[in-house]
Amino acid sequence: MQPQNTEEILKSQIRTIPDFPEPGVLFRDITTLLKNPEGLTLAMDAMQKNLDGLDFDVILGPESRGFLFGMPLAYNLKKSFVPVRKKGKLPAEVISKEYDLEYGTATIEIHKDALQKGQKVVIADDLLATGGTAKAIIELVESIGAEVVALDFLIELDFLNGKSVLEGYPIHSVIHY
Amino acid sequence: MQPQNTEEILKSQIRTIPDFPEPGVLFRDITTLLKNPEGLTLAMDAMQKNLDGLDFDVILGPESRGFLFGMPLAYNLKKSFVPVRKKGKLPAEVISKEYDLEYGTATIEIHKDALQKGQKVVIADDLLATGGTAKAIIELVESIGAEVVALDFLIELDFLNGKSVLEGYPIHSVIHY
Repeated sequence: MQPQNTEEILKSQIRTIPDFPEPGVLFRDITTLLKNPEGLTLAMDAMQKNLDGLDFDVILGPESRGFLFGMPLAYNLKKSFVPVRKKGKLPAEVISKEYDLEYGTATIEIHKDALQKGQKVVIADDLLATGGTAKAIIELVESIGAEVVALDFLIELDFLNGKSVLEGYPIHSVIHY
Repeated sequence: MQPQNTEEILKSQIRTIPDFPEPGVLFRDITTLLKNPEGLTLAMDAMQKNLDGLDFDVILGPESRGFLFGMPLAYNLKKSFVPVRKKGKLPAEVISKEYDLEYGTATIEIHKDALQKGQKVVIADDLLATGGTAKAIIELVESIGAEVVALDFLIELDFLNGKSVLEGYPIHSVIHY
């Protein structure tokens, strides 16, 4: 038997659910992966390996699934963790960015004092889809004068071509669909 | 100079914000702690130490701040991670629990297949306040026939006496107010 590669093993542990959250969407459900300690370890090890040798200061994770992957990376690599949250959740002074969704808009926020000018930032999240959220986060980071040096995703949906709106930024994705 | 203990050091890195999210509440803002790599390490080390020697299978973390603390524990201790989510977020078949808030009610959910009968579960979260959410999670876990063997919090608000609704369950809290 040939050994499976990491991506194949991880894919075999992700559950695909049709028509969630809306008709026509194939939802990639990572809860079946996370409930398997070997799968969880393999996924986090791979996301951590993607940052090997990279010089950076801060892991930035968007609410709420970015929290899952950002914090273990920050803890194990001894970096800052900064949450990106939906509007109204952060208690101190924030900077906000509104961005377009397929229907309507969304607003994300970070604390104004969460980042310092010149800091090097990695964005960690479960999923790169259209890239809209990631692009909005990059604009927030750069408006403070900090720098996005990499984006680290568990899953990338290649057919949505999120990379095209994130041109020039190094993107790492463990699993591709 | 006397060395400070862990709780004092962590408290010095938590920002207190009056009247958030509503008048009269002192909000304990952990973002100032998490953006300091030494503070983040000290907090996670202490939460992990509270589980030393404990026999268990699953870390269960409620959305969204429970995700921050649950995943690093699951990854480093090689356990399952199971998310508890707000209504409508989980894509497969769920079991739900409605519980009372100060005004109105909230509903939390876990996937029906997230836990197995007889599994030993640790609940990890940032904050023990009135204990309402934790109690609702315990009822979900027990309805599946799994067992809550410990609750692991970063912060406990002693004056709200959450312990009283969680009697009989081992509670660990790193910081007390």
